[in-house]
Amino acid sequence: MKPALAFRIEARDPRTAARTGRLRLLRGEVRTPAFMPVGTAGAVKGVLPAQLRGLGAEIVLGNTYHLLLRPGPDVVRAAGGLPAFMGWHGPMLTDSGGFQVFSLAQVRRITEEGVRFRSHVDGREVMLSPERSIEVQHALGADIIMAFDECPPGQAGRAEVRRAVERTLAWAERCVRVHRRAGSEQALFGIQQGGTDPALRRQCTERLLELDLPGYAVGGLAVGEERAATFETLAVAAPLLPADRPRYLMGLGKPDDLVEAIGLGIDLFDCVVPTRNARNATAYTAAGRLNLRNARFRTDWGPLEEDCDCHACQSVSRAYLRHLLLVGEPLAGTLISIHNLRFYMRLCAAARAAIAQGCYAEWAGRFLERFRGGQS
Amino acid sequence: MKPALAFRIEARDPRTAARTGRLRLLRGEVRTPAFMPVGTAGAVKGVLPAQLRGLGAEIVLGNTYHLLLRPGPDVVRAAGGLPAFMGWHGPMLTDSGGFQVFSLAQVRRITEEGVRFRSHVDGREVMLSPERSIEVQHALGADIIMAFDECPPGQAGRAEVRRAVERTLAWAERCVRVHRRAGSEQALFGIQQGGTDPALRRQCTERLLELDLPGYAVGGLAVGEERAATFETLAVAAPLLPADRPRYLMGLGKPDDLVEAIGLGIDLFDCVVPTRNARNATAYTAAGRLNLRNARFRTDWGPLEEDCDCHACQSVSRAYLRHLLLVGEPLAGTLISIHNLRFYMRLCAAARAAIAQGCYAEWAGRFLERFRGGQS
Repeated sequence: MKPALAFRIEARDPRTAARTGRLRLLRGEVRTPAFMPVGTAGAVKGVLPAQLRGLGAEIVLGNTYHLLLRPGPDVVRAAGGLPAFMGWHGPMLTDSGGFQVFSLAQVRRITEEGVRFRSHVDGREVMLSPERSIEVQHALGADIIMAFDECPPGQAGRAEVRRAVERTLAWAERCVRVHRRAGSEQALFGIQQGGTDPALRRQCTERLLELDLPGYAVGGLAVGEERAATFETLAVAAPLLPADRPRYLMGLGKPDDLVEAIGLGIDLFDCVVPTRNARNATAYTAAGRLNLRNARFRTDWGPLEEDCDCHACQSVSRAYLRHLLLVGEPLAGTLISIHNLRFYMRLCAAARAAIAQGCYAEWAGRFLERFRGGQS
Repeated sequence: MKPALAFRIEARDPRTAARTGRLRLLRGEVRTPAFMPVGTAGAVKGVLPAQLRGLGAEIVLGNTYHLLLRPGPDVVRAAGGLPAFMGWHGPMLTDSGGFQVFSLAQVRRITEEGVRFRSHVDGREVMLSPERSIEVQHALGADIIMAFDECPPGQAGRAEVRRAVERTLAWAERCVRVHRRAGSEQALFGIQQGGTDPALRRQCTERLLELDLPGYAVGGLAVGEERAATFETLAVAAPLLPADRPRYLMGLGKPDDLVEAIGLGIDLFDCVVPTRNARNATAYTAAGRLNLRNARFRTDWGPLEEDCDCHACQSVSRAYLRHLLLVGEPLAGTLISIHNLRFYMRLCAAARAAIAQGCYAEWAGRFLERFRGGQS
């Protein structure tokens, strides 16, 4: 069965690699570049699906690792898949679980077969392999699923990164095999690894492209390396991926990261930053980020951002949000998450408009100058 | 200045003391009997004002004690009052802070002047007196404010309760004096105390009525005494209050408590039960309460309640809510709070309809039989 995915690029910026288009998936259409709010364990923390829809989210990410542990793939499958389970009736993407296995769990043993680890929840021993990851992602039923990869840390040596590339490629082949055999309409994306080494990125991509997948991701960035190295690598890594297929930069990033990466040809993003930082009192605005615990907001009756149309900005003040944070009221996280996600959605919409008008470089320059000039 | 309050009783049940009517206040109208969601520190935990409005709440309660400590009355006054501060543009009621001083703070000294206590937040020493409570409630700016009273615990002896009644009456006079002098349009309610002693309740009420206030509350119930004693006392206490003014039963209760108390002539309620219990996995339905941590809900794809129109019941299953509770996702509290508050709103609406049709006793009997028969 062919994957339910059609990617149409509608405009390319003349002076950067930025492009804008539409990604048609099983459950609907996503305008790219697009940001995916992260719904870790079947919920974007503090934000309801109806609120996500209202703030303009078109696709949401779910974490296979978390859902594998709780409630387990059988429960989600019986619910009719993750979108039905969580009440988000739109496009979704699930990651493979690989990244969380290496970052959250206590890894017991990595073999060619897969990874044996202890659950960070209850210490239970669990096995995740390419076959098992795909099987679980079939149960979750997202529109886009990801190959099971090995993501070495940013400080890994070249030999370790090379071994991870080899394993990632071998595992990707096994993912493709089991996925095609199952006859699923879900679109399986491959993941490029290779650390910050351009040659490894190239070698990894060449062999990955033989799998002829409907989309590809850049993995293994922002895992501990310097920010400059992240973007130097991305500038090499992104153009290696086929220009006619969606490119997904995994796990990044801050607003200025998105703006830079869009200029390098990235179409899809996910990151916990807008929601996790919201719960930690950080709000994003075009003029930089605000730390709402700051005493200067004590009697600041303005909205988080003057021209923002989000529910938080339309209904409460910075002073009120600061108060909610100081008393530990979780509604603060909800309201600032709504604002931050809306900020990301408006950022992507503005980027799409600038690309369509052929002035992405100018727009991005202005955005970055104002955003980086205004950190407080 | 006359208080902005008009209470019109539209129907009285022929065989109980239940009545239904409309309470017109500074910021709008409230249909009675009405339940007030509790917005402790300027927010109903986990539920946005727009959601409260959507589920039918017409009046919200704020806690003077919490807001006095954080963010302080000056901040709330500068915001334009508590409704503007929290973005709830409807009727509000604030309590006097008395109950929380006695239940949360470390009381240092009670004198005729007032109560000196240590804040439960930072140990700071604070003084709350009748004059200070009214001053703070003027800053908060709710439609209805409450006299500062002394609420002895349920196990207090008769002498202690008698002393608390005397103090409550003396303090009420001082509240009225400072309130009238300020020329506020806010409606000040008096509070009846007297423990479970009918004679003390009567004496307290006789002298309280001399103050000619626009509404009265029954205080000092459900503070540790047996449930039977609560309702025996209420059956004596409620009819003592003037039939043409709103009667508010403070701090109660569970759904069946509301149904019984409405039958005894109560018009207004507040309680943390629907929201606090929601966060602790308890959902209320007409067939009793559900403990959503129970394993039997693991693959229960039904809504919390079959015929409920709330956002939770319209969008997610019991199995999903159980999952959110087990992984510690605060959205569980939000969704179950929305359901529970909607359940309370529908309960009050059904009670009003039954009173209007003159069949409250029958309706209440059926409700209690089904509700109490179905605890799980």
